[in-house]
Amino acid sequence: MSLNYPCKKTNSSNKKTSVFNKGMDLEEDINISNKFYLDNNIAVIYKKPTPISIIKVDYKNKSPIINKAFFSIPSTTDYNGLYKSKYIDFEAKETKNKNFFPIKNILPHQIKHLITCLNHGGVCFIIILFKFYKECYLVNIKDILTYLEPVQSNIPYKFIKEKGYLIKYRYMPRLDYLKEVEKIL
Amino acid sequence: MSLNYPCKKTNSSNKKTSVFNKGMDLEEDINISNKFYLDNNIAVIYKKPTPISIIKVDYKNKSPIINKAFFSIPSTTDYNGLYKSKYIDFEAKETKNKNFFPIKNILPHQIKHLITCLNHGGVCFIIILFKFYKECYLVNIKDILTYLEPVQSNIPYKFIKEKGYLIKYRYMPRLDYLKEVEKIL
Repeated sequence: MSLNYPCKKTNSSNKKTSVFNKGMDLEEDINISNKFYLDNNIAVIYKKPTPISIIKVDYKNKSPIINKAFFSIPSTTDYNGLYKSKYIDFEAKETKNKNFFPIKNILPHQIKHLITCLNHGGVCFIIILFKFYKECYLVNIKDILTYLEPVQSNIPYKFIKEKGYLIKYRYMPRLDYLKEVEKIL
Repeated sequence: MSLNYPCKKTNSSNKKTSVFNKGMDLEEDINISNKFYLDNNIAVIYKKPTPISIIKVDYKNKSPIINKAFFSIPSTTDYNGLYKSKYIDFEAKETKNKNFFPIKNILPHQIKHLITCLNHGGVCFIIILFKFYKECYLVNIKDILTYLEPVQSNIPYKFIKEKGYLIKYRYMPRLDYLKEVEKIL
């Protein structure tokens, strides 16, 4: 099972600056949108820090230095927060696949977490970027439960196109996913 | 401003095993209680991972090793989650002080975050353990707003004893703070 390590090197200064190219780093787009939502008093949604297991710390300096640590498997999804008094919880993934969203891109216990939150009254979804089509969808967990349990299976692109909500790329917020959340509240 | 580094060494096996001594590691007590709430389908509340700034990663091995990183200042509080369809957000702190809770124990932007969440309809509080009295209180953010803005000031123990909710230590959940949350819903 592969983890998406967050510290992979990307040279963002080399990217072309068209709106669309800006819109291709899903995590960055969501983070920037969340900042916009927070700054404009619309919602309070954050990406959780990357979980690590710390092995060795040097406390000699004023600022302790972590000398050895490993990435650990996250317990929950990457994003949660608060919008219009509602608890929001989601995972965001991109795929190059044309025909379906590979369900293995989300860890089984993250799927379980989303379903648990749904059962406790949360607003839970997945944001999926299909890079081939340059389309980004918000998919309500409620709509894909048949793909999630009892057995997890790939979700066809056609199904997502039909049942999901296409998120528009804009100048600000770059990826206005809360506009689509409105439709599932 | 001091950060509470999470990897300080504690030899928990040396601790006495009376219920009260068990109850003295606030973070551990909350984590264990959260696990109980989750396992018993009562609530979905997690401690967020410790935020770090990664400087150097060795990708040569199958499991990448972080060789250099620093603790960074958290953007939000330590705990959030979902209880009875409500968004829950809180910070937990202990103090040896007898007369007041030193407000500097919570970072100013964490206080700001709690107030922002409150304004967006979240259930927001601080859990404060007074080690001297061996008393642990849940304090509703709404009740201490006069201590939080416009200027942050220390909160007298007397005030907390009067306005806060004493959380009972039990066998399971060890620190049943959701029982007190009920009173502020």
